[in-house]
Amino acid sequence: MSDYAPTARTTLHRRPARAAYDRDTVHAILDEALVCHLGFAVDGQPFVLPTTFAREGERLVVHGAAAGRLMRHLAGGAPACLTVTLLDGLVLARTAFHHSMNYRSVVVLGTAREIVDRTEKRAAVAAIVDKVSPGRSQRARPPNDKEIDATAVLSLPIAEVSAKIRSGPPLDGPEDAAIPVWAGVLPLALAAGRLEPDGPGGLGFEEPERPAGLLHLATR
Amino acid sequence: MSDYAPTARTTLHRRPARAAYDRDTVHAILDEALVCHLGFAVDGQPFVLPTTFAREGERLVVHGAAAGRLMRHLAGGAPACLTVTLLDGLVLARTAFHHSMNYRSVVVLGTAREIVDRTEKRAAVAAIVDKVSPGRSQRARPPNDKEIDATAVLSLPIAEVSAKIRSGPPLDGPEDAAIPVWAGVLPLALAAGRLEPDGPGGLGFEEPERPAGLLHLATR
Repeated sequence: MSDYAPTARTTLHRRPARAAYDRDTVHAILDEALVCHLGFAVDGQPFVLPTTFAREGERLVVHGAAAGRLMRHLAGGAPACLTVTLLDGLVLARTAFHHSMNYRSVVVLGTAREIVDRTEKRAAVAAIVDKVSPGRSQRARPPNDKEIDATAVLSLPIAEVSAKIRSGPPLDGPEDAAIPVWAGVLPLALAAGRLEPDGPGGLGFEEPERPAGLLHLATR
Repeated sequence: MSDYAPTARTTLHRRPARAAYDRDTVHAILDEALVCHLGFAVDGQPFVLPTTFAREGERLVVHGAAAGRLMRHLAGGAPACLTVTLLDGLVLARTAFHHSMNYRSVVVLGTAREIVDRTEKRAAVAAIVDKVSPGRSQRARPPNDKEIDATAVLSLPIAEVSAKIRSGPPLDGPEDAAIPVWAGVLPLALAAGRLEPDGPGGLGFEEPERPAGLLHLATR
């Protein structure tokens, strides 16, 4: 697949070797992340709010209450920044300076547009539901007209975008190799616990699919 | 402990029952989160970047490369927004509309200042190291002058701040109670895997402390 074209705003100046622009990498990070942090600015003041989202091909869709500040502001065509971060581990070096984290992040810059067509909105809402539990949009009751009208859905093109990835062990210099402290990586991943059914109504039905990105680590 | 005073910008209009302003709640969320998303705006374009941070009393400290865009921009006194989000579960409702997530988030608005005093910087860096592994700043080699000068450290007061929390089961209406689909919560938490030592140098030393916020869930 082709790469996304870096722009002046998405070119990493710090540690450019950690940058990635290929579609597969960007898509995989976006598809694994369950939450994004969406930024917008009002009179120079940035606001960063967490929300759910899904990828539909080369665009991202986010939804929220139609009456909410986030949706009203971004639907008006304000510049946006959507960032996702997957935390993969704590990098524990021999020196304070070389402590780090292993992570995969994506930053998407652009201008959102509001999806107003009900059919298109329903498809976007289904994509968001299916992201957290694949196939679920076919089993839960779909939104009725009142519900879909109370929901604002925005789309943001995946065009001006960069990924940034750190992996691997700490990078202490050779002069620090003999410092007598444990060094290495503590891997981290989002893990699922046991399903908590909502009363007796939850019993007797097929368990929901888990999202694809959840790892099931051997815990301590 | 006293509450933080809500301002026009931190008063939740959507679902105000989910808002919290008490110090204990805000501090606990900030202390558990390993990553924050830091927002700043340049000519109306927001940028949202993930970074590590720590709390020192009533301020947050973040660090980064002194030459980096984030640090240079915020050190100049630009308005900032620091947001943390802890994802606690997927709320799987009987209706698409009532799908949700359980989470605890904090949004801090304010203006950062750069910490230039080396002693103050060293304390802030130690707080960040100790956050990911308690006590570690006493065992790893502290930053030398060159390293501390290459690191920019910013502080942001915890003053204009709100927390937002959702917990509990899905909230479908009684008219949807009979929809034949599993409903409830899939709990999520950041979990640690097995330590990965950095070569033989990692062996023979005491294992590092894990950060306080990591849960060790029973995985599927």
